[in-house]
Amino acid sequence: MSAMNDRFLRACRREPVDRTPIWMMRQAGRYMAEYRALRAKHSMLEMCKTPELACEVTLQPVAHGVDAAILFADILLPLEPMGAPFEFAKGEGPVVHQPVTDRAGVERLRVFEAEEGLGYVMQAIRLVRKELAGKVPLIGFAGAPFTLASYLIEGGKSTHYLKTKRLMYGDPAAWNLLMEKLAEVTRRYLRAQVAAGAQAVQLFDSWIGQLSPEDYAEFVSPHVAHILRDLEATGVPVIHFGTGTATLLGLQKQAGGTVIGVDWRISLTDAAKLVPGVALQGNLDPLLLFAPLDVLKKRAAKVVDEGKKLPGHVFNLGHGILPETPIDSVKALVDFVHEYSAR
Amino acid sequence: MSAMNDRFLRACRREPVDRTPIWMMRQAGRYMAEYRALRAKHSMLEMCKTPELACEVTLQPVAHGVDAAILFADILLPLEPMGAPFEFAKGEGPVVHQPVTDRAGVERLRVFEAEEGLGYVMQAIRLVRKELAGKVPLIGFAGAPFTLASYLIEGGKSTHYLKTKRLMYGDPAAWNLLMEKLAEVTRRYLRAQVAAGAQAVQLFDSWIGQLSPEDYAEFVSPHVAHILRDLEATGVPVIHFGTGTATLLGLQKQAGGTVIGVDWRISLTDAAKLVPGVALQGNLDPLLLFAPLDVLKKRAAKVVDEGKKLPGHVFNLGHGILPETPIDSVKALVDFVHEYSAR
Repeated sequence: MSAMNDRFLRACRREPVDRTPIWMMRQAGRYMAEYRALRAKHSMLEMCKTPELACEVTLQPVAHGVDAAILFADILLPLEPMGAPFEFAKGEGPVVHQPVTDRAGVERLRVFEAEEGLGYVMQAIRLVRKELAGKVPLIGFAGAPFTLASYLIEGGKSTHYLKTKRLMYGDPAAWNLLMEKLAEVTRRYLRAQVAAGAQAVQLFDSWIGQLSPEDYAEFVSPHVAHILRDLEATGVPVIHFGTGTATLLGLQKQAGGTVIGVDWRISLTDAAKLVPGVALQGNLDPLLLFAPLDVLKKRAAKVVDEGKKLPGHVFNLGHGILPETPIDSVKALVDFVHEYSAR
Repeated sequence: MSAMNDRFLRACRREPVDRTPIWMMRQAGRYMAEYRALRAKHSMLEMCKTPELACEVTLQPVAHGVDAAILFADILLPLEPMGAPFEFAKGEGPVVHQPVTDRAGVERLRVFEAEEGLGYVMQAIRLVRKELAGKVPLIGFAGAPFTLASYLIEGGKSTHYLKTKRLMYGDPAAWNLLMEKLAEVTRRYLRAQVAAGAQAVQLFDSWIGQLSPEDYAEFVSPHVAHILRDLEATGVPVIHFGTGTATLLGLQKQAGGTVIGVDWRISLTDAAKLVPGVALQGNLDPLLLFAPLDVLKKRAAKVVDEGKKLPGHVFNLGHGILPETPIDSVKALVDFVHEYSAR
């Protein structure tokens, strides 16, 4: 690895690369012993809010040879300065203490300045950039309005998104006010991350696959566009990610982003037909990291092969690494993608 | 409603209909007070195993004017006679007491004769047919091998299908043996349902949307084909249903079925382009039943309009009715689809 590994940024920009760049969503996570050691001493939120800890965790997986670091943080962090504090309950995921249920709740939410409400994130970014010293680029990120709204309204992770869709269908004015506030918070937050040194940003709209194309177009897409159109003006690569998006890709591209992230439910080749001309990120099923190495490599090779035919391809999983994932498989995948794509 | 309402069967067979037929997945369920009254006295499994109770529940929603009854049962019923008993734990969904984790577990599973292992289901079918007296057709159903395998391996409902995919990737021979057993059990079970009087059958492969197209083609599709090719020979309509299937529809059609069931994530028009020539069933988001009536009707009208351009269309939701659903919206939807489609 040279001191100037920019193949991730080059692939995002659809420029030629020597090897297919790879990073993995949740590459800093429980599957790593170093991470678990820190988590044993600190809560998730403590780690996010302490720039030195966030920096340390961000750097941990860089040792595996990935071509980008992604800031250690959580998509829900903006909820607290908006006035909706949450915690990570043991084994249950995030719990928002006072879910937003109606227009009055939406009106109470604050649109804040990122450096004031989430200054610790920008501090972590500055620290990571210094520590990385150009070794690999640093990716910043934020949750997208629909995904944030779903946690805010449901109070946590959801199966059917009952309360979310009830508000969306039942009070579209309140819904749009909520989405406007979330979109403006997210726009400012990502702008601040770029200003602090993030060299690319990813917008996680992880749960939009729950929506019909018409609901996405009517209730979500304009708010995503508010963020992404503005971010594109910064000149840094903007990755627009979702899962279960086979029927939404065209609409996602219209909403913005210079790279579209897809999951394993659609092949890169088919995705590229729906969003021609942009770079793609993805799309190995993270469960393949539990397969025997020969199976993992065979499937990774297919992703690399398809990616090489695209204008630009960043190898990634289709969703985050699971905590139970064998670390040796993660390392083997990084090495394999580099070796195989260089052939 | 005449004494010979056959518009559901006609639509399945792509014959002209006077109105778009409608039934709804989980139309017999907790959203109905009559159902809740029975459930207060009997467990879910008791109701399934007592033909008189199953019959009573099956008939309850027919009063709403739906164009088909669907047998009250559960997709997991075959697991018990296979040697993998389960129960419905309060608020947690099904729990399989001894999940199948390896080849030895797969080998222990029994392939049984449906009339012996699940005779109570066929008794219920005979009873329902008698009670219905031709008022509307009766649909039988079964869970498909992948969906059954996921419960059998995970021990219940899953988010990531970690154990399922680990077996699938890690021991394809054991996986295929498991799928062969489940497919043969399901084939016999659906054959027996037809012999007992089911006038159409639906195969629920609810969770295949978790799979990449190549995994579906390699690990699932041949086993589904084993069931569906055989069932088609009976001459009754065979509905092949899944959710999140936008990239799987072509493969599903190849595996079989005279009607393909789709969810709201893909429009009927787009689905029809992927599986031309077959009848489609679907595809309203069940969450729209929580929307104001004008919104519900507007969206239902769009589904009807798109359906009318197809060779055959059965109106349904994209997945089951949720327990919290307002019953008035269910009734209003049935009436609206009939009125609007007759215009």
